[in-house]
Amino acid sequence: MKCNLKYLILMLAFISPACTNVQKKDSKSSILFPKGEKHTTKNFAGDVWVKSLIDADSLNETAVGNVTFAPGARSNWHSHPGGQIILSIDGVGYYQEKGKSKVILRKGDVIKCPPNTPHWHGASKDTEFVQVAITGRTNGATVWLESVPDSTYLAN
Amino acid sequence: MKCNLKYLILMLAFISPACTNVQKKDSKSSILFPKGEKHTTKNFAGDVWVKSLIDADSLNETAVGNVTFAPGARSNWHSHPGGQIILSIDGVGYYQEKGKSKVILRKGDVIKCPPNTPHWHGASKDTEFVQVAITGRTNGATVWLESVPDSTYLAN
Repeated sequence: MKCNLKYLILMLAFISPACTNVQKKDSKSSILFPKGEKHTTKNFAGDVWVKSLIDADSLNETAVGNVTFAPGARSNWHSHPGGQIILSIDGVGYYQEKGKSKVILRKGDVIKCPPNTPHWHGASKDTEFVQVAITGRTNGATVWLESVPDSTYLAN
Repeated sequence: MKCNLKYLILMLAFISPACTNVQKKDSKSSILFPKGEKHTTKNFAGDVWVKSLIDADSLNETAVGNVTFAPGARSNWHSHPGGQIILSIDGVGYYQEKGKSKVILRKGDVIKCPPNTPHWHGASKDTEFVQVAITGRTNGATVWLESVPDSTYLAN
């Protein structure tokens, strides 16, 4: 078969931009909320980014924030006087309440942590984790406790 | 230039699956929470699906739900005694408080609606809208008001 370079270039010109557009859309669609600033307190281990989405105020004391944990990063043990709701947005994470087994969280999983219940959350060992935290401030601020050792973090 | 049909087919065979794979990934990544059941009360116009993610209880009176509005679908005017927080998850939606202009919501936009403030929300005319609604039940249930006429829905 004989064919012309012109036709080949024309064909590729139609195919290539279609691929490029889809990839761009996919890359954009995986980001729901901005990553925010790197968190610097000693209440977390590893790299953690926090973006406040909604601040609590006197009319509605619910705060909403987007938290991104790098692989291996996690919070210290802590509790919330008003409890907390966690929405898993992307990646793979861990959540554990004191005295219970570690729970693996994936995109779309939700957690309701009761008031005054010590717990920790973070990314899995190898995969980043993005969560939205919904925290009622009515009964007071978060109570921070001790760090989570590797033996606890890695336990099944 | 002479070229062979065999090379052309081989080249297309490499390019096409690459496109297909990316499209599949994109389609999967857009689903964060299940769509849930079709809503059947008269408090909404058009097709609306609701998936409860977290129920309010006596320890934490915050309810979280995923709501999907088909293009053109919207809620009636209503207010929440404890206020409401809206997280825009996907698509294009509208939000309006009584006496204010309509706001266009896109993926990643957030809204804090004050307590006892009449408002409505829904999809845009041509595009589905997915939102997560965070509603405090402490001060009582949602107060439902009149429907939103096309003249209001379509106004700029």
